[in-house]
Amino acid sequence: MTRISGVLSPVVTPFNADFSVDAERFVRHCQWLMSRGVGLAVFGTNSEANSLTVGERLDLLDRVVDSGVDAERMMPGTGCCALDDSVRLTAHAVKRGCGGVLMLPPFYYKGVSDEGLFRNFAQIIERVGDDRLRIYLYHIPPVSQIPISLGLIERLLDRYPKQIAGVKDSSGDWNNTKAMLDRFAQRGFDVFAGSETFLLANLRNGGKGCISATANVNPAAIHDLFQRWKGDGADALQAGLDGIRATFQKFPMIPALKAAVAHWGADEGWARVRPPLVELDANQRATLVAELGKRGFAMPGLAVAA
Amino acid sequence: MTRISGVLSPVVTPFNADFSVDAERFVRHCQWLMSRGVGLAVFGTNSEANSLTVGERLDLLDRVVDSGVDAERMMPGTGCCALDDSVRLTAHAVKRGCGGVLMLPPFYYKGVSDEGLFRNFAQIIERVGDDRLRIYLYHIPPVSQIPISLGLIERLLDRYPKQIAGVKDSSGDWNNTKAMLDRFAQRGFDVFAGSETFLLANLRNGGKGCISATANVNPAAIHDLFQRWKGDGADALQAGLDGIRATFQKFPMIPALKAAVAHWGADEGWARVRPPLVELDANQRATLVAELGKRGFAMPGLAVAA
Repeated sequence: MTRISGVLSPVVTPFNADFSVDAERFVRHCQWLMSRGVGLAVFGTNSEANSLTVGERLDLLDRVVDSGVDAERMMPGTGCCALDDSVRLTAHAVKRGCGGVLMLPPFYYKGVSDEGLFRNFAQIIERVGDDRLRIYLYHIPPVSQIPISLGLIERLLDRYPKQIAGVKDSSGDWNNTKAMLDRFAQRGFDVFAGSETFLLANLRNGGKGCISATANVNPAAIHDLFQRWKGDGADALQAGLDGIRATFQKFPMIPALKAAVAHWGADEGWARVRPPLVELDANQRATLVAELGKRGFAMPGLAVAA
Repeated sequence: MTRISGVLSPVVTPFNADFSVDAERFVRHCQWLMSRGVGLAVFGTNSEANSLTVGERLDLLDRVVDSGVDAERMMPGTGCCALDDSVRLTAHAVKRGCGGVLMLPPFYYKGVSDEGLFRNFAQIIERVGDDRLRIYLYHIPPVSQIPISLGLIERLLDRYPKQIAGVKDSSGDWNNTKAMLDRFAQRGFDVFAGSETFLLANLRNGGKGCISATANVNPAAIHDLFQRWKGDGADALQAGLDGIRATFQKFPMIPALKAAVAHWGADEGWARVRPPLVELDANQRATLVAELGKRGFAMPGLAVAA
């Protein structure tokens, strides 16, 4: 099995009017993203995955894999607060042939030790007990509040060199990403930047790609930089990506992503978010669309509702 | 149905060697706690509830209620990250006759708005759709990172005066508890302090009791203050409680509580915690036991393993 590289999207999850998951819209968006060259980090932070039940995630993963997408390009989020939930989701992802899993640490209890986190990941690896398992640790301290320290990575890599495949660094701190690259990239530990902001820098320093919210709406352009990062125009491509991202970052990210899909897909249902999130209001939405329009933003190939 | 008042224990949850829940030990501890006069806030923070699956919590609640304890003195934790999980746990607690539920806000996404939190609680109330539902909001910003603001309480109380029954304030900030009392106690909103530290102050200002970690190990003495708070000796009783609590607070609380139950119950299995928590090491345990011994601490009536 080939290791995952390139650009992945933490796929946004559409909801029906009663807040149930709309699996059909979800599969359609997954297929569009794959057609633009990006892999599927379904059940990420931007997927509102932590607002989904374990059962919903299991069902939805089946729906996507059954639709015929390449599971080796999938990296579902499977890290939960409860160890048994993490084991169940991870085992299912491996069984369905996913190329990797993106694993949050348990995130309710704060100030936990690296020893406790090591035990969590070790238990998951031992219980899943499958040689095909590839774990990408999910470092996102602004949200999880539970950092994945360099010391923890080293200890996990020493003990489970095959299963610990890499990291998504969503710290927003390039110095941390660089430290991960410097210390672990040579050992086959694949570093993904947490957004396209650091995509070029990450690739130039031995990283493997990025997993980015905005890959939901701007996948082809981000993938284009991944394919041409060694060329002369790479810095200009990076600057173009940064402009689009900056516009989205003026708003709450998840509602803004969904508003863009709703607008460019002419499909209002996409704008819904589950509580505790709130959709953009009409003014925010109009501003987002206008600013993106000025930048020439579009979502070519997106299925437009009749 | 009588409103819950007095002292409640967020019951610690015992695990077998393979980390599965030990329902038998759990029920036994619940019965001991009830025999000492305290109610059961099962599935609280100190219960490692967020390290339990929804299925484990449903099963365990059934086991406790089926054991014959008074469900009206139970306030299980039912607030999860995923709305559907919160609805399921809450509906089950109401169905089993629990006097109330203690409800965390969804705690993965940070910086969410009061509007989003309002929608979360409103959805739960509407979907459970049972007049018997009594919700105690769980304000514990040091852990959840999601505060329950006074503005949110007011909005919920205005819309759902019957279902919004009160709060557990684990902010550790007496000024906040006092503000909740001043603004809402007259409206039948029952304020529980998050520890016995503020039990006397809370009762003197119109509060209803406390829900405290250390009620797992020191239930009778805390209940004694609740019964005699109007008497002359109340301040001395409070000081005694504070001394015991201060000793526990020198250690990570959950492992320390379990170590005490393991020691005084001569039942080593009680010391286990689920990852990401870590049990006390031998030195910590010896120090805890010695310091508690000096204070004359004991757990009378606790079933001692053969």
